[in-house]
Amino acid sequence: MEIARGLEGIVLTQTRLSMVDGNVGKLVIGGFPIEALAPVAAYEETIFLLWHDRLPTPRELAQVREALVAAGSLPAETIELLRAAARRELSPMDALRMGLATLPLLDPDSSTVELQRCDRPSNQRRALAVVGAVPALIGAYHRLSQGHEPLAPDPELGHAANFLWMLGGERPTEARARALDTYLNTTVDHGMNASTFTARVIASTRSDIASAVLGALGALKGPLHGGAPGPALEMVHELRAEANRSGRSLAELAETHVRQVVGEGGRIMGFGHRVYRVRDPRADVLGGALQRLFPAAGQNPLYDDARAVEEVVLRVLAELKPHRRLATNVEFYTALLLHALELPLPVFTPTFAVARVGGWAAHVLEQVAEDRLIRPRAMYVGPIERSWVPLGERGTGLQ
Amino acid sequence: MEIARGLEGIVLTQTRLSMVDGNVGKLVIGGFPIEALAPVAAYEETIFLLWHDRLPTPRELAQVREALVAAGSLPAETIELLRAAARRELSPMDALRMGLATLPLLDPDSSTVELQRCDRPSNQRRALAVVGAVPALIGAYHRLSQGHEPLAPDPELGHAANFLWMLGGERPTEARARALDTYLNTTVDHGMNASTFTARVIASTRSDIASAVLGALGALKGPLHGGAPGPALEMVHELRAEANRSGRSLAELAETHVRQVVGEGGRIMGFGHRVYRVRDPRADVLGGALQRLFPAAGQNPLYDDARAVEEVVLRVLAELKPHRRLATNVEFYTALLLHALELPLPVFTPTFAVARVGGWAAHVLEQVAEDRLIRPRAMYVGPIERSWVPLGERGTGLQ
Repeated sequence: MEIARGLEGIVLTQTRLSMVDGNVGKLVIGGFPIEALAPVAAYEETIFLLWHDRLPTPRELAQVREALVAAGSLPAETIELLRAAARRELSPMDALRMGLATLPLLDPDSSTVELQRCDRPSNQRRALAVVGAVPALIGAYHRLSQGHEPLAPDPELGHAANFLWMLGGERPTEARARALDTYLNTTVDHGMNASTFTARVIASTRSDIASAVLGALGALKGPLHGGAPGPALEMVHELRAEANRSGRSLAELAETHVRQVVGEGGRIMGFGHRVYRVRDPRADVLGGALQRLFPAAGQNPLYDDARAVEEVVLRVLAELKPHRRLATNVEFYTALLLHALELPLPVFTPTFAVARVGGWAAHVLEQVAEDRLIRPRAMYVGPIERSWVPLGERGTGLQ
Repeated sequence: MEIARGLEGIVLTQTRLSMVDGNVGKLVIGGFPIEALAPVAAYEETIFLLWHDRLPTPRELAQVREALVAAGSLPAETIELLRAAARRELSPMDALRMGLATLPLLDPDSSTVELQRCDRPSNQRRALAVVGAVPALIGAYHRLSQGHEPLAPDPELGHAANFLWMLGGERPTEARARALDTYLNTTVDHGMNASTFTARVIASTRSDIASAVLGALGALKGPLHGGAPGPALEMVHELRAEANRSGRSLAELAETHVRQVVGEGGRIMGFGHRVYRVRDPRADVLGGALQRLFPAAGQNPLYDDARAVEEVVLRVLAELKPHRRLATNVEFYTALLLHALELPLPVFTPTFAVARVGGWAAHVLEQVAEDRLIRPRAMYVGPIERSWVPLGERGTGLQ
């Protein structure tokens, strides 16, 4: 019997949502090359595209925005719970999970009616409620953790701008909202990754959207999946600090660092990806967003330094591991972009969820249409005829 | 490219936890034939068996019991949230999910430290905290829904007895606790079902046990998985009511009912299973538990009537669908047993979670040891070169 460990190479289903071609570094979202979509679309347009397979009209876009803003008004009990979580200094991902689980308080039907009984428009309405709640929960928790009261979303702002508003309490410039939209579009979907797959497995039992999203969030928490943008930036921070302390050049320090980590068999965070054999196309899109945010050199010294470190890392990795083709991945540029938008480090992975939740919902809708229970098998390798030993005859537990 | 829809026939991994042989109707749990384990083991012994691959000593069993009782003391904020949920009449599954998500309030480290960083004993301690919390949350929510205050677990009682105590406010007889233990053991694990698979996918990202269990719970909610024991009993209830009204015999009414449902292409709930081609071995174990609970005929008229209905259903199904081999499945006897233990209908699926959570934790521990990201592929079938159309050029939304 052949064992498909990790399900590697197994094709689960067909999808119209995204295509990842790791050999040529190509990513398609809803039929658009990522370069053609991410820098121009509002995130609301992208999720409409994924859910409807076309772009929204102005009226449809306004309806989506209205639903997302409405979903950002959290129940009082949810706020109180987040307050208790902030007192105990829970991680923002735990707080987000907790908050999402309370959403049936707003709409008791939202998750008791299982997916198959609902028509597609009603599932899309429920999906919008979840997509709208995610940034509101993250914003509320962040503000409570800082000793501030949560802010309601502003109906005049788009989804990305509202997230920045609910986090920081300032209405962002158009350029900053545009940069965040580009990030959200870039990471909204990425083939059958582990969190998306989790959402599909849960939806395949005809459960509800809230269940699928909560499960996906649990998978995203895992460091093998969504937990990585922080360390990529930490390396740059540490190298800069050392350069300041020692007076040595950043490039020299970066080279020493990479040689040491690779020599010890370690991994440089932010470089290499399971799928991409060439440069991750998302890295370029995010790099472009950063350049538009800071058109002149010197406006963002961290960005300039990070580019310098990247150049060294790529050169040294190519020398040390010529057969691995380790290229810059999305984590490195994600970290730079989110840092440039002044998002605090603990909010990086939750912000990934702000983006990916629209993709999860799209996959749930696709899975509902397919309506096939997902359930592989396992090969049993234990004994089959053990005999019962009464408790008193099992020894003392002191051996 | 071959598509493995539903992953049917794909073997994901090796396991020592349970073996399901649907062709001969055999179920092995932790090396024991289900008939040899379920009627004699306490549920606490069964989960120890699954987690350690051997039965506990008296001292180890006492430690497990102590940890489970400790985990049944819920945070005050969790109780308040369940109170708000009860006011809005949320389903017990939604309330359970909500309550589980709040558990990091008790132990902020429980889910922020990802699985791989923890050693096996510490993962087992966290697993016990979740297993102990599930019946406490269900009991607390049920009592709040009935206008009563929640009860803390009693250190003198075992896990099954404590669940009955926290639900009903009466210390159960030994026979009733024994019957519930038998149910919990019978349904603790069942190969790579959809909820167990969900838990493994989430754990494979090196996320935490709470995340894996929350995701699994979302899958269990789905009517294709855990949502079915209610309807099996409803059919018997309706037939009995009709027999009382009309004076016709139960057997005659059951025959008419089955012929009508099958004639309309419908399905008789409680009969047939994706895996078992013969009688579900769990049905016999639960039937035995019922007979021990009511040794004399007439002690449980519903049970006697249900057996009569079952006989008719099997005879008529064999006649109408001779090639399908539709046998009684676990749902039918689950419904009878839980009803005999006076559990209310809305608590049936949550009680399935009380049992299965020990199996989920066992699979998470096995997955942690394997440490391989689970991630299949999808085949993209959409366009790849769409061109952007600015918002103003997309029509009015009135078409």
